Amino acid sequence: MYIKAIEWLGDRLSLIDQRLLPAEESYLELDNTRRVADAIRDMVVRGAPAIGVAAAYGIALGANEIETDDKEQFLRQLDAVIDTISATRPTAVNLFAVAKRMRQKAATGKDIVEIRQLLAGEAISIHNEEIKATESISRLGAELIEDNSGVLTHCNTGPLATTGYGTALGVIIRAHRQGKHLHIFATETRPRCQGARLTAWELKKAGVPFTLITDSMAGYVLHRGEIGCVIVGADRIAANGDTANKIGTYTLAVLAKESSVPFYVAAPTSTIDTSIKSGEDIIIEQRSPEEVTHINGVRITPEGVSVINPAFDVTPNKYITAIITEKGIIREPYGDNLKSP
Amino acid sequence: MYIKAIEWLGDRLSLIDQRLLPAEESYLELDNTRRVADAIRDMVVRGAPAIGVAAAYGIALGANEIETDDKEQFLRQLDAVIDTISATRPTAVNLFAVAKRMRQKAATGKDIVEIRQLLAGEAISIHNEEIKATESISRLGAELIEDNSGVLTHCNTGPLATTGYGTALGVIIRAHRQGKHLHIFATETRPRCQGARLTAWELKKAGVPFTLITDSMAGYVLHRGEIGCVIVGADRIAANGDTANKIGTYTLAVLAKESSVPFYVAAPTSTIDTSIKSGEDIIIEQRSPEEVTHINGVRITPEGVSVINPAFDVTPNKYITAIITEKGIIREPYGDNLKSP
Repeated sequence: MYIKAIEWLGDRLSLIDQRLLPAEESYLELDNTRRVADAIRDMVVRGAPAIGVAAAYGIALGANEIETDDKEQFLRQLDAVIDTISATRPTAVNLFAVAKRMRQKAATGKDIVEIRQLLAGEAISIHNEEIKATESISRLGAELIEDNSGVLTHCNTGPLATTGYGTALGVIIRAHRQGKHLHIFATETRPRCQGARLTAWELKKAGVPFTLITDSMAGYVLHRGEIGCVIVGADRIAANGDTANKIGTYTLAVLAKESSVPFYVAAPTSTIDTSIKSGEDIIIEQRSPEEVTHINGVRITPEGVSVINPAFDVTPNKYITAIITEKGIIREPYGDNLKSP
Repeated sequence: MYIKAIEWLGDRLSLIDQRLLPAEESYLELDNTRRVADAIRDMVVRGAPAIGVAAAYGIALGANEIETDDKEQFLRQLDAVIDTISATRPTAVNLFAVAKRMRQKAATGKDIVEIRQLLAGEAISIHNEEIKATESISRLGAELIEDNSGVLTHCNTGPLATTGYGTALGVIIRAHRQGKHLHIFATETRPRCQGARLTAWELKKAGVPFTLITDSMAGYVLHRGEIGCVIVGADRIAANGDTANKIGTYTLAVLAKESSVPFYVAAPTSTIDTSIKSGEDIIIEQRSPEEVTHINGVRITPEGVSVINPAFDVTPNKYITAIITEKGIIREPYGDNLKSP
């Protein structure tokens, strides 16, 4: 692991502040739930798997903060802690899966001391599982990447987003390390420029040759025939394979189809939400207008301009060539094949 | 005309500095060719029709600067002036059409005094023709805009870009003034954010309801079914209808096709270049990497990141529902119908 995006220090959580990258490599140490919730909401930490891991530690920290000796009261307050963490961001399903899992774990503890230990242990397990999952995803996915090809990716899906090897970016980095000659095209990913800031930073660290493009250049690059495949991450995958991911993903999927280029989604099974039938039911987070009207704190639009700021869009399953999970590569029909990946 | 983007003051040219909008409404007065050439290259003035008009005045100013009484020598120096202006930007054909026309006009003058007068007169004619053309485009194009619909547009194609009513934006504003209930979605248009800066400014001045989106949100908006048509301008249209326009246009065309939404190009016939068979032969300007790596003068990427910065892309004719010119609405087969619009 060459980037310590999330590190558990026993009684506090260390997070690299992803908002400040690449200009500044700065770490925050958080010792309570509220600060972890703020960090998730403000995108100090982002990326569906990383959000899940940070949330787990945030809940473990919250359990330590509760000041009562009464187990029932403790569990009620723990519920409130978990609700606080769950309310930070609506789209990435990892957050809710982690919340559910931590709640279930707490129920198995015989007393407050044991519950606290169980929750800290569970958070560490979740973290390790995510690291292991991305290791497996990168290995399985790398098989799909052809030698001497261009690969287009979106947003940021490396160690920062996943705490592990990375999903889409993990696949890319692994294929590169296998000696495949790749050239990556990374979209800047407005409004928050995770591609320009984070993916560029990670690819540079990993020594993978790449070109950064604005989101508007993806069609140009695909149309020129320079791309062998498009690979992206996911924030939530519905039971039918419809995939919510960073805004702009749907556009890349349509462009890939138009150029007859495979479109891959790389995500741990923790991102699959079989409780949701199709993408239509996925709640899309609408974020602050300032992310669109301002760049680097400077207003680029006239005053009083109306904007929308959906953080994600949904790519219907028909555009997805395969979903790469740690348990295997899943193809159509997704409805059947996602049930037991 | 509610925005004086380009104004001829008899012995100098006034240009609104489009680089500073919307934060600052500032005008430059240019009294020589070199400064006009710099203004075109640096995008003080941009938009294919506006570039053509500014170039015409720049040539007229250049003719006044030449210090010789010998007509042959004068014409040779005038050729150099025209070459300087022509070398500023490679994609918008208006620049080259204007250069050719000014050269031809100069050849009809009997002496230097008359040539100077003829060139100033020709520049004013070109300016007036562009204003008239966009007036006609807006009127013809407005017929295609359905009442109670969403309209998606890209980059900036209003008075700033055209000196007149506007091409795509002229159509939109005209349809709005006819009482049609429209909601415009304007893309921010990275890297130079002409949509966020200029189109937002013009739509606000014109009182047309609109929402600004990042380029990455266009697919989201189209997929939700909110868009009745996409309408864009053009920098050069080849003989077969393939259209070079601001980077990102091809992507919008593919997205429009995928959502079965009409895709219109609005451009004066001065933008049609029948000397070029297809879009493959259109030279695409590659601009400075800093436009991608920096926003508002602040670096957003790590140091030493490789980028590309094509200012335009080419939309193949098959995606274009119609081309709206001042002489009429042109449809397939473009090869035949563009010959005598």
